[in-house]
Amino acid sequence: MITHAEIKYYSSLLQKKYRQKERKFTAEGDKLVAEGIESGLVPEVILTTTSFFEAQKDFFNSLKNCRIELIMAADLRKLTDTKTPQEVIAIFPFISNRSELKKLSRPLLVYLDNIADPGNTGTILRNCDWFGISDVLMSNGSVELYNPKVVRSSMGSVFHLNIFEDTGIRQLEELKKKGYSIICSDLMGEDVYDFMFPEKCIVVFSNEAHGPDNSVREVSDHIISIKKKGKAESLNVASASAIILSLLTK
Amino acid sequence: MITHAEIKYYSSLLQKKYRQKERKFTAEGDKLVAEGIESGLVPEVILTTTSFFEAQKDFFNSLKNCRIELIMAADLRKLTDTKTPQEVIAIFPFISNRSELKKLSRPLLVYLDNIADPGNTGTILRNCDWFGISDVLMSNGSVELYNPKVVRSSMGSVFHLNIFEDTGIRQLEELKKKGYSIICSDLMGEDVYDFMFPEKCIVVFSNEAHGPDNSVREVSDHIISIKKKGKAESLNVASASAIILSLLTK
Repeated sequence: MITHAEIKYYSSLLQKKYRQKERKFTAEGDKLVAEGIESGLVPEVILTTTSFFEAQKDFFNSLKNCRIELIMAADLRKLTDTKTPQEVIAIFPFISNRSELKKLSRPLLVYLDNIADPGNTGTILRNCDWFGISDVLMSNGSVELYNPKVVRSSMGSVFHLNIFEDTGIRQLEELKKKGYSIICSDLMGEDVYDFMFPEKCIVVFSNEAHGPDNSVREVSDHIISIKKKGKAESLNVASASAIILSLLTK
Repeated sequence: MITHAEIKYYSSLLQKKYRQKERKFTAEGDKLVAEGIESGLVPEVILTTTSFFEAQKDFFNSLKNCRIELIMAADLRKLTDTKTPQEVIAIFPFISNRSELKKLSRPLLVYLDNIADPGNTGTILRNCDWFGISDVLMSNGSVELYNPKVVRSSMGSVFHLNIFEDTGIRQLEELKKKGYSIICSDLMGEDVYDFMFPEKCIVVFSNEAHGPDNSVREVSDHIISIKKKGKAESLNVASASAIILSLLTK
């Protein structure tokens, strides 16, 4: 049985500072929980309600050797930032089975330059995962990877990808030396439909409100754009990433 | 000065049934308020806090002949579903200056088939607006256009587009008779990169969880897909719309 103190402890993981201190995060919903385990993470505990446990016997039977605890719906709500939570939550350790940045050898990488919105970040990770881009660098001004909304909107892609947090210009420069071209998407650049992507490149998506960081602009080899044909003031960065990654991997 | 009863009345517009009854909706933030007015809508009232009013004199000076009322921040929070609201909200009447569906003559249309997520819906509208698609049909199972999150995530595009709510198969069939081909995006279809879009067509985006409605499948002339290269289980529908609309209007 779970104690009141444990519920309190797990609910503290809704806050970045406690996630970072404890190096643990929550994943909500049967799909995310299953994806996390399948990726090799060992959950500290899986929390669910009696009714969900009864209704999803097969799911819980498939989770071998996991500590599963039944909690009240009211306690479950303390562990999530969603209004209508799914009734199963896993507590996972931070993901650590990732390759080293130095050893990256795949030709196509993505760099997230200070993207602050968790929903956009999760959707971009999902787009990378759809188009087979396995390695993503996140600048240290980006939203935290383990933010519950990032995890949720990535729809499990956080578990599939090699993600390198807290990277910056130094890492971009090192990768340039290894032959990667840096392609930055921005408002005024070459039309992406006329652009020939180099074989080895890092595609940069930037903060929607502020555009590319100056230091990123300086190391960029090319600026590309998705041309506007209508009246919208801007294009959502996750939508822009979908178009660019689709063309990059065509 | 605004009365307590008025605050209560305007806060009822957070609920769909009262929006539909009163045929009014709220738009939050200076950009959305300005876009709504620029599109020709006359706000019933614009509500703001003293501090925002003082800080944004130029903005409020530009709003000629509008009723502007100062309210307390605590009251403003009652009028929005966001946690950290922007400090200006306009109450607009439903948009009525739209063309008739019968008179549509532009060759490219979009149909939203039971898309329920307001954020995705707003982003798709924004994508249509970016790529110059002016006419959007929404099935009657779609989220309501005036849902605050649709309005917000459209970033003003709800004010730029001709949007026809409560449409269905009957309208699609009528448009087919006028020479429009119906192109439905789904998991198993022709690769969008190999597909030649007809000159006159309606592109259908469907509910992410359920895929195209059977009746929509039946009237479709072509099914197109964005091919998966990685491990993600699915592609976000707003991201899919970005790719398809970008190719459609290339």
